Amino acid sequence: MAEPRPPKTICWEGGLDGCIQMVDQTLLPGEFRVIACRDVETLWEAIRSLRVRGAPAIGVAAAMGTILAVREAATPQAFFENLTRVCDYLATSRPTAANLFWALDRMRRRADGLRGRPLREMKETMLAEAQAIRREDAAICRAIGEMGQGLIPDGGTVLTHCNAGGLAASEYGTALAVMFCAHERGRRFRVYAGETRPLLQGSRLTAWELSRAGIDVTVICDNMAGHVMRDRGVDLVVTGADRIAANGDTANKIGTYGLAVLAKAHDVPFYVAAPRSTFDFSVPDGSAIPIEMRSAEEVRRGFGRLTAPEHVPCYCPAFDVTPAELIRGIVTERGVVEPVTRGRIRKIFPIRACNVGEIR
Amino acid sequence: MAEPRPPKTICWEGGLDGCIQMVDQTLLPGEFRVIACRDVETLWEAIRSLRVRGAPAIGVAAAMGTILAVREAATPQAFFENLTRVCDYLATSRPTAANLFWALDRMRRRADGLRGRPLREMKETMLAEAQAIRREDAAICRAIGEMGQGLIPDGGTVLTHCNAGGLAASEYGTALAVMFCAHERGRRFRVYAGETRPLLQGSRLTAWELSRAGIDVTVICDNMAGHVMRDRGVDLVVTGADRIAANGDTANKIGTYGLAVLAKAHDVPFYVAAPRSTFDFSVPDGSAIPIEMRSAEEVRRGFGRLTAPEHVPCYCPAFDVTPAELIRGIVTERGVVEPVTRGRIRKIFPIRACNVGEIR
Repeated sequence: MAEPRPPKTICWEGGLDGCIQMVDQTLLPGEFRVIACRDVETLWEAIRSLRVRGAPAIGVAAAMGTILAVREAATPQAFFENLTRVCDYLATSRPTAANLFWALDRMRRRADGLRGRPLREMKETMLAEAQAIRREDAAICRAIGEMGQGLIPDGGTVLTHCNAGGLAASEYGTALAVMFCAHERGRRFRVYAGETRPLLQGSRLTAWELSRAGIDVTVICDNMAGHVMRDRGVDLVVTGADRIAANGDTANKIGTYGLAVLAKAHDVPFYVAAPRSTFDFSVPDGSAIPIEMRSAEEVRRGFGRLTAPEHVPCYCPAFDVTPAELIRGIVTERGVVEPVTRGRIRKIFPIRACNVGEIR
Repeated sequence: MAEPRPPKTICWEGGLDGCIQMVDQTLLPGEFRVIACRDVETLWEAIRSLRVRGAPAIGVAAAMGTILAVREAATPQAFFENLTRVCDYLATSRPTAANLFWALDRMRRRADGLRGRPLREMKETMLAEAQAIRREDAAICRAIGEMGQGLIPDGGTVLTHCNAGGLAASEYGTALAVMFCAHERGRRFRVYAGETRPLLQGSRLTAWELSRAGIDVTVICDNMAGHVMRDRGVDLVVTGADRIAANGDTANKIGTYGLAVLAKAHDVPFYVAAPRSTFDFSVPDGSAIPIEMRSAEEVRRGFGRLTAPEHVPCYCPAFDVTPAELIRGIVTERGVVEPVTRGRIRKIFPIRACNVGEIR
């Protein structure tokens, strides 16, 4: 039976002495297992090894991660020391996702406003803030879905890459929220999910989420996208984003740029779906976005079997940058930015709202 | 130590009572194992399951396969009956590779010229013909390499897809022959090998062959090609071909078309390297080339582990078609066809030579 609600990817269980609970996404689709993170080292490893992944979900994880550190403090001074340390530490887990830094900044600013309050109250307020980030993210994802659902025509075909679903965010996700909301309205459409080498978030996670919701999904290898666009017809491509520069250049999972070029060549509109927290206005354009390099082993033996000679180098960038001019529109919780220009982005997220921590 | 000579992919061992010996390419790069095919069923399975693959090598395998059938004949009538049966049977193994049909046709024509000869002589002449196909293929691959080597600049970067090397043909291969010959001349260059999902012929075979020869090769996932072209610079793309239509439209491993589109977008010349036997003049353009569909399981559990939900469909075309206008040139044993037009192709392979069996 189709399960209309996405799974609970990440949450805080219990009070201040509780823990983070998350779906271990490295085990899907074979196994659905919820794991607990009770200390920051375990959380860092979970982010680094992609047990939790997807820019919005990493943001939620990081916010909750600060609680694991500040709750240990015996004095206000230790509270702030722990907070600084945990923020610096978690910031090293994955360099590209804007939401990670956004969430840590928001937690730091919240803490700054708590100076002079009783220690217990400071800790509880921080926990409430982390939980608010998760709750707000769920509402924002839902809003992204509502804003974008009209893009999918009845009987249409959508192509997506990687996983920008409930597993990558809170509940509805970003790119998949658009599909979930179109599906809720009774529209029928087909989705091609690129498997997304090397770690196969498309075939493992997106296919699992969409089929679970009763949406018609077919997995393809990433290199089939051009053939599918030309021979089977695709109405739109929609992906998530890990960081969006001020001019709209978008870092997302490796392969997104190639898809955008193919979409242009086939006259297929290419959309990105992302919340405000994925925009990084401190970065003028895509050339300044740091691209995470991952281990060659993810390419060479991603699935426990040697698939390239041991001594041959493998290149493994986790992301690429799609220039704004290849993006037809960016679906946000406030509406669709189209065309994608610095000015249009500023219009939907005005300067005031663009200061970190002020939007939500 | 670098081994300059490519491995002996396929050969006939012994006399008429001998057998086909081939490298089992499904085991590379983990294991180098030579297997024997003593009957046509074993050979059919070896072609079907890609133990031997690559259009020219499939042609050689098919030619040798006819010997396994005709040697059993006790009468001239049985000889021709066996030949018809084995040709029809082997033709069902893989539908796209032109060389398969070319080689079977050549063997049939050779047999037609033997009517009235003693049975033993007929069999021995057929074996000599099959061995000649292999020998000629090796010489043709070498010629392709010589014709194309000048395309690779010293200090340059080449990108290739799938495996069009010694494992795909006799000795030098086609696309890789261009690299082997440039390397022999002492030119230094880097090769990016797309891993080529689902069966990873790029990471398993091309990386193995090139590094074995001492050529600088780096494996990438197929979806990294766009990023590599833009951020690292690529001087040319060169791939093999499975079937080339009369107008130059080229069927090759799935993903080739997408690469050609990316190459055009980045102003990178895209070359195909293939012998005369890969051209099919009975097919006017790419739309008439049959595209082999393979099992969804190759996508779903290609690494021996479930990588997509069991019940979700996976689409698995083995090839795509790159239109002639995206191909800068086709490197053949007679020279480089450039630009790729029906007329230029006819000029290099005139009508007379284009009749099956007449070129070699």
